Amino acid sequence: MKVAILTIGDEVIEGKIVNTNAELLSKTLEGSNFHVSMHLVVRDDEKDILAGLSFLYQDVDVIVTTGGLGPTADDLTKEICAKYFQEDLILFPEEYEKIKLYFLKSKGSITENNQKQAYFIKGATVLDNMNGTAPGMIYEKAGKVIVNLPGPPKELEPMLYQGVIPYLSKKNNDQIYRKQYRLMNIGESDAETMIKPIMKKYSQIKVSPYASVGVIDYIITTPNIGDKTMFYEACEEFECVLKDFIIGDWSKSIQEIVVQLLKAKSLKLAVAESCTGGLVTSTLVEVPGSSEVLKEGIVTYSNEAKVMRLGVKEITLKQYGAVSKQVAAEMAKGVINSSGANIGVSITGIAGPSGGSLEKPVGLVYSAICFNGKTIVFENYFNGDRNKIRLRATIHILYELYKILK
Amino acid sequence: MKVAILTIGDEVIEGKIVNTNAELLSKTLEGSNFHVSMHLVVRDDEKDILAGLSFLYQDVDVIVTTGGLGPTADDLTKEICAKYFQEDLILFPEEYEKIKLYFLKSKGSITENNQKQAYFIKGATVLDNMNGTAPGMIYEKAGKVIVNLPGPPKELEPMLYQGVIPYLSKKNNDQIYRKQYRLMNIGESDAETMIKPIMKKYSQIKVSPYASVGVIDYIITTPNIGDKTMFYEACEEFECVLKDFIIGDWSKSIQEIVVQLLKAKSLKLAVAESCTGGLVTSTLVEVPGSSEVLKEGIVTYSNEAKVMRLGVKEITLKQYGAVSKQVAAEMAKGVINSSGANIGVSITGIAGPSGGSLEKPVGLVYSAICFNGKTIVFENYFNGDRNKIRLRATIHILYELYKILK
Repeated sequence: MKVAILTIGDEVIEGKIVNTNAELLSKTLEGSNFHVSMHLVVRDDEKDILAGLSFLYQDVDVIVTTGGLGPTADDLTKEICAKYFQEDLILFPEEYEKIKLYFLKSKGSITENNQKQAYFIKGATVLDNMNGTAPGMIYEKAGKVIVNLPGPPKELEPMLYQGVIPYLSKKNNDQIYRKQYRLMNIGESDAETMIKPIMKKYSQIKVSPYASVGVIDYIITTPNIGDKTMFYEACEEFECVLKDFIIGDWSKSIQEIVVQLLKAKSLKLAVAESCTGGLVTSTLVEVPGSSEVLKEGIVTYSNEAKVMRLGVKEITLKQYGAVSKQVAAEMAKGVINSSGANIGVSITGIAGPSGGSLEKPVGLVYSAICFNGKTIVFENYFNGDRNKIRLRATIHILYELYKILK
Repeated sequence: MKVAILTIGDEVIEGKIVNTNAELLSKTLEGSNFHVSMHLVVRDDEKDILAGLSFLYQDVDVIVTTGGLGPTADDLTKEICAKYFQEDLILFPEEYEKIKLYFLKSKGSITENNQKQAYFIKGATVLDNMNGTAPGMIYEKAGKVIVNLPGPPKELEPMLYQGVIPYLSKKNNDQIYRKQYRLMNIGESDAETMIKPIMKKYSQIKVSPYASVGVIDYIITTPNIGDKTMFYEACEEFECVLKDFIIGDWSKSIQEIVVQLLKAKSLKLAVAESCTGGLVTSTLVEVPGSSEVLKEGIVTYSNEAKVMRLGVKEITLKQYGAVSKQVAAEMAKGVINSSGANIGVSITGIAGPSGGSLEKPVGLVYSAICFNGKTIVFENYFNGDRNKIRLRATIHILYELYKILK
């Protein structure tokens, strides 16, 4: 089944934000056995939206739009989709009550404009928005399906998984087998080299990598009418070859896995960060319930704070410098001593853009884990700009924590 | 002058990579006085590329393509553009020599396929590629301009700045006035209500809001042939009405402004975080040079850590609870005392999803700033999920810091 994605918003056209929604929708739809045909991005402009709908419907039966469901005058998506189908929008009183309730709960103040968010085409399926005021809509007429989703990814994501994919899948007759893997600590090229023989042997099976910073997500699918046995054989070989790098499927992030493992083992973690500046702690705190396992996080940017807070020895700092194996080790041990945690993690490095030298270039990061009386230190050279280096260092140490805890 | 961007590549359509090229091109073109009209992404497919060209040229005179200039069979861009213009590709021998030289320099081995990268439409302008083997092409016929750029951003970027913008600017007669504003501490609906009279009065001037968590970016532009006086009048009225919320233009984030203000005043900051779990510190550390102004960050998730690290009184915790005005104030004072900073910032709240009560619901956040012997405490109810609450709390306290420092 062919699907097109229509993104509506001046902010995307003008390069103010990257179109990550199109990426997420594509990845999810392709992974659910739909064929994504085109992405189109248009401005908040009636003429352009109508032209886009007409153009895309020449090629596909389903268009998923994102954006333009807000309360303001430039939010036009539903109105124009209704116009395209020669229908009117009518007030869905129940939905209006839900929006009012949302405001009540979040103690925000509802404006008159918000009422327009409760208008839909008669007979449309409404997609509840758990994280905002803009419900989505699915409407179908004469074999053409329109799906309207809000722009903010946090609002769009649950609607996509819970509403859109189940709805569209009922209409999709293509039979598919699918398995997802999340890999860490391996580059895309290396992984490709390792699985080349499998891809050659099972040429009917599609193996797609999605690489992001520190993580590669794989999806293995069969073509339309797939051979089940062959599919499971291919997956088994894939798992065998890449077993050292697979951390699970796509359902859990590395921070969720780490928090889960710490909980299961009743361990308490403390984190001492220098160049990452709280990013490791903050990433762990993203996980609900992390308070149970996180004893303390501390950002010791200055040497003074490293000495005072963590008991790093002044002589170590003097002799080896703040970015060194020795200081990383003392920080990890120190944060255990000062916090009473079972596991101590530390990171010290040069995130740049300045502060690098020939001997210690930008991107050099030392990290350490202290657990059961042993301290392991890691030396890495990460590439990218300041914030990519910080992110890579964060993801790396979470992966090492995972390995030790597992 | 209206421009459309046509991205060609299965990897973008399938969600394997994010379309950052479209973002870069849009930003650069919009910033150089062009009006970007649409982005279209199609697969490496002749029929789709031709359909895309025809559709986009209905609306614009210039199409910039990215991708599909490589040496392999699925790289079709130049061939299909030539076909669209009913022209042939011919070998440009000089360009072939340059490609050979590139291989010689980079010690790679040239393949027969690479010869195809030296084929262009007769009369076309070639854009040299300093970082790869695929030159770009600009071709013009009957008032329609096509620009072909390679997919890899490293190769595309220099061609865009050095070749494309200068070429197109010679053809651009549009005079556009543009001004950008960044607003904080106001919702999109409230801002719209406030500026409604201005938008009505200056109906020819376009006012576009781009809302993200805690921030609204506005851009005010005139249409193609704009009235300069009217434009500046409209901007003045906009600034007047929203002056309490404007923090600057789009060039700086709130964390950059805060770090800059701290540097200018030679102040040192220390941060004590509970529910935000390091997000405030980590956001500040995104800014290069933040080490100069950030004395220390500390995540005191447990009551124990609040007492031990920050000197919060046990009786205060017992009497008012960890999420209270009193504890926020003691945390902010405590982090100054223990770190020796000039300004102390604290956050304590309930990020959820659990831990809320009728009296203290999920989303309740107390934050405090201690400066010059005074402590100000803020009470907020933020909506959204765990991480949105954490982000809103972070952005809010950075904004309050900005107000105090300014």
